Amino acid sequence: MRILFVGDVMGRSGRAAIAAELPNLRSRWSLDLVVVNGENAAAGVGITETICNDILAAGADAVTLGNHAFDQREALVFIARQPRLVRPLNYPPGTPGRGAALVDLHDGRRALVLNVMGRVFMDALDDPFAGLEREIEACPLGLACDAVVVDVHAEATSEKNAIGHVLDGRASLVVGTHTHIPTADHRVLPGGTAYMSDAGMTGDYDSVIGVDKEEPIRRFVQRTPGSRYEPAGGPATLCGIAVETDDRTGLAVKVAPVRIGGRLSPALPDFWT
Amino acid sequence: MRILFVGDVMGRSGRAAIAAELPNLRSRWSLDLVVVNGENAAAGVGITETICNDILAAGADAVTLGNHAFDQREALVFIARQPRLVRPLNYPPGTPGRGAALVDLHDGRRALVLNVMGRVFMDALDDPFAGLEREIEACPLGLACDAVVVDVHAEATSEKNAIGHVLDGRASLVVGTHTHIPTADHRVLPGGTAYMSDAGMTGDYDSVIGVDKEEPIRRFVQRTPGSRYEPAGGPATLCGIAVETDDRTGLAVKVAPVRIGGRLSPALPDFWT
Amino acid sequence: MRILFVGDVMGRSGRAAIAAELPNLRSRWSLDLVVVNGENAAAGVGITETICNDILAAGADAVTLGNHAFDQREALVFIARQPRLVRPLNYPPGTPGRGAALVDLHDGRRALVLNVMGRVFMDALDDPFAGLEREIEACPLGLACDAVVVDVHAEATSEKNAIGHVLDGRASLVVGTHTHIPTADHRVLPGGTAYMSDAGMTGDYDSVIGVDKEEPIRRFVQRTPGSRYEPAGGPATLCGIAVETDDRTGLAVKVAPVRIGGRLSPALPDFWT
Amino acid sequence: MRILFVGDVMGRSGRAAIAAELPNLRSRWSLDLVVVNGENAAAGVGITETICNDILAAGADAVTLGNHAFDQREALVFIARQPRLVRPLNYPPGTPGRGAALVDLHDGRRALVLNVMGRVFMDALDDPFAGLEREIEACPLGLACDAVVVDVHAEATSEKNAIGHVLDGRASLVVGTHTHIPTADHRVLPGGTAYMSDAGMTGDYDSVIGVDKEEPIRRFVQRTPGSRYEPAGGPATLCGIAVETDDRTGLAVKVAPVRIGGRLSPALPDFWT
Ligand SMILES: [Fe+2]
Ligand SMILES: [Fe+2]
Ligand SMILES: [Fe+2]
Ligand SMILES: [Fe+2]
Ligand SMILES: [Fe+2]
Ligand SMILES: [Fe+2]
Ligand SMILES: [Fe+2]
Ligand SMILES: [Fe+2]
Repeated sequence: MRILFVGDVMGRSGRAAIAAELPNLRSRWSLDLVVVNGENAAAGVGITETICNDILAAGADAVTLGNHAFDQREALVFIARQPRLVRPLNYPPGTPGRGAALVDLHDGRRALVLNVMGRVFMDALDDPFAGLEREIEACPLGLACDAVVVDVHAEATSEKNAIGHVLDGRASLVVGTHTHIPTADHRVLPGGTAYMSDAGMTGDYDSVIGVDKEEPIRRFVQRTPGSRYEPAGGPATLCGIAVETDDRTGLAVKVAPVRIGGRLSPALPDFWT
Repeated sequence: MRILFVGDVMGRSGRAAIAAELPNLRSRWSLDLVVVNGENAAAGVGITETICNDILAAGADAVTLGNHAFDQREALVFIARQPRLVRPLNYPPGTPGRGAALVDLHDGRRALVLNVMGRVFMDALDDPFAGLEREIEACPLGLACDAVVVDVHAEATSEKNAIGHVLDGRASLVVGTHTHIPTADHRVLPGGTAYMSDAGMTGDYDSVIGVDKEEPIRRFVQRTPGSRYEPAGGPATLCGIAVETDDRTGLAVKVAPVRIGGRLSPALPDFWT
Repeated sequence: MRILFVGDVMGRSGRAAIAAELPNLRSRWSLDLVVVNGENAAAGVGITETICNDILAAGADAVTLGNHAFDQREALVFIARQPRLVRPLNYPPGTPGRGAALVDLHDGRRALVLNVMGRVFMDALDDPFAGLEREIEACPLGLACDAVVVDVHAEATSEKNAIGHVLDGRASLVVGTHTHIPTADHRVLPGGTAYMSDAGMTGDYDSVIGVDKEEPIRRFVQRTPGSRYEPAGGPATLCGIAVETDDRTGLAVKVAPVRIGGRLSPALPDFWT
Repeated sequence: MRILFVGDVMGRSGRAAIAAELPNLRSRWSLDLVVVNGENAAAGVGITETICNDILAAGADAVTLGNHAFDQREALVFIARQPRLVRPLNYPPGTPGRGAALVDLHDGRRALVLNVMGRVFMDALDDPFAGLEREIEACPLGLACDAVVVDVHAEATSEKNAIGHVLDGRASLVVGTHTHIPTADHRVLPGGTAYMSDAGMTGDYDSVIGVDKEEPIRRFVQRTPGSRYEPAGGPATLCGIAVETDDRTGLAVKVAPVRIGGRLSPALPDFWT
């Protein structure tokens, strides 16, 4: 199976990159499963129903979220009717939406998409380790589904590393989001799970993690409140990770970073043409 | 000028990679300046005089530190007699050692090496932005020195991004350390400063950021104290960044990630042979 | 019912105050229920079986804990055989010990003692609000027990305030611990629950929250590691809260701070003689 | 000298208590110096020029601030023309306003009022210990002024304890603010400085630290964003500390908590009538 995961789409610039690139990638690479993190898609914070639909229409099978999941308050409502929008599974019971989506692919195969939030340097949510165990035991890779993709929305590399190892052999891909900077530690772990600490954002990197740089720099230096943060408006780099899995096991056999456009050095998988 | 920066050397595994690779790299690439972060070189926390001397002997011109700078208490003493060991400049006045080193290179040129700590999600130190301004104004690139290398030891990508932009055009290289995971956002910023949010560690990546994975995973899951953290003992990946500067300006013209050995996908500069 | 809660016993000085005062208070005030927080009783961090037994022998019906619960590693073992030692209930399932103890009082009545940890500015544990709901629904005040005492081991006053309001009318006493400084907001909440944001420690207040002040002050100023923290050795103030409940409802009718000995201004309930 | 310090005035409820009580207290107790923390005076966050003037007109000689200092953006401007409004001294150089005010009292004596912010569990500012040293060395108690009052706006009791000890003998009063809950550790330290870890807020205590309790409780439980925080509207408790100093030394001889009105148990100094 061919899987593409795309990191935090940041504002208008990020959405433009999705619209311009994702349909082509989907068809050119014959992708089976595309997951996009959309927690910053609407003006840099949260997601609206229109934007969620646009990302799905551009070629995503599922959209994941993070700490900004509900910053656009309408997401608390429309998430109920959008089964392909996945919020962190470790929100407390009763939170609108779902933390796991079992997605039917074009050919009848099924992929489990999970989103979870870390707790180191982040708000307190339920235990991500226990929550992931529950979801994966309920729908084991190779038995109940053909792929498991886990978006670990977290700050600390230690927590992401730990989750990767814990799930190794039981997920097709464990990929981090939230720091908005792609890491270069993509690899297949010993047990067969593709791993990358952060997919990076899909946004303008001439910025402070996607935000127009002037105000955050001013705040770092002056330490006083000021104007609102605005997404940087320059061309985005679409950032993510490409994974090829073994159809018999659902585990990863090949992995490569994806970086298209914008300011970062380009990267494409050499195993798809 | 040819510059190599190597990220956090982690314990015995990291030291072995330095000993095995650095002398060769130094001569093969005709490096002019080599800086190595050594905050985890001694058993994963801190640095001893013997280990510092070993890293310098292997080909480093300067060794930088971070939040673990003084975990080996002897560093509070020997740092006074080791002018090539640089601790974060934003420790309070009176802290042993120095946050800036002006290093004489083999050919008489001089490089300013700075080490600074971020404050987001980290212990409170003095203002890194103000401290960097002071040091760089005191020894401007192109006027008082031929290269400026800044090791930003910090957790948050936002703070690292901001420091990169603030110093753009005034440093040869701004590179992050501390997360122990290399980022893939290496580039030359618009003003001519090479930038990478994190160099990554030089250690065994089959681990939790360099620590033998069993105990940190147990703590994440069980939340109770247990045994000591031990550095993972498998083969290390030497991680860092290669920068070629313009000799007239001291600014960067080429930049590439470096990853040699161990578990990560290899990366070498294609502009040096 | 007459209830005394005593805050974090800090090292030898705190234990001496317990030994000297608690037996007298128990008999003089004809106390029905005494709960003591013992998370710092052993050398300032954790508790041993001997020390736990000493506190129980001095007149406590139950001993509660906090973030230092297992700093003396033997507590991971002996807590299994000590039903009156209560650790935070929001440790993950499988943690040794219990977060709730149903204590049989001398006259056959029963008291539910709960210990929970906050998550603001503290390590990530399970949801304290959900955990408290579960325990209190399982053993409701006035139906299944005659008193409910909740030790909220937390840093942030906001979280403690919120827990107090949520449990108002369902607990006899909600009292905070962990900051080691007594608050002056003791009162009966509108629904009948006695509340105080922090009981204060039972330790030497000529200190930095019970620690010999020299080293913590040095670290605040110099920001470098140094010698171990040692409990301050001067005379302790026994700090806590006295509550009189209505025997029919188990809710509070009178509340007063208790401060005996040491450096703080003395306080005793005027409703017991 | 007779000094009254009043803690964080919270919204309309807190302002009403100031207007109703402070003029009477000032005359009844023949107060020489009144300092009021006003960081939450305007709708719970920040302060406006009108509100600052009202607090001064009600009997304050100086108004101190904290992390909410500039939440009402106009404070960045009018603080320049209001010498009795004091913001934390450890904002970076160039921040509008001042961190120290030398206030002329009615009888010609002079009081130094300092405001500083802690760094534990708070935003990164400059070193509070170094900043306080500078200010106090520039205007020593007994030599250049007749009283020194320090408002330590901080979360952690450890940091407040440490600052108290460091300034003991060099300040008339070191009092904490920010947690919005009064502590009961008021005392004269061995060197003669009056100390209290937190003055408490002047606001409605039937709340979550002054905020109408419904929304903060909902957020603690549900972890999703919701409506704005609004100050609780019930009757406020005016909270603070009363200090009598020795006119020859400026050091404290008597200290007592002050709690008037609202939900908390009342407290008044017994040494003034
Ligand atoms: Fe994001
Ligand atoms: Fe995020
Ligand atoms: Fe490190
Ligand atoms: Fe570090
Ligand atoms: Fe404690
Ligand atoms: Fe504690
Ligand atoms: Fe406040
Ligand atoms: Fe505050």
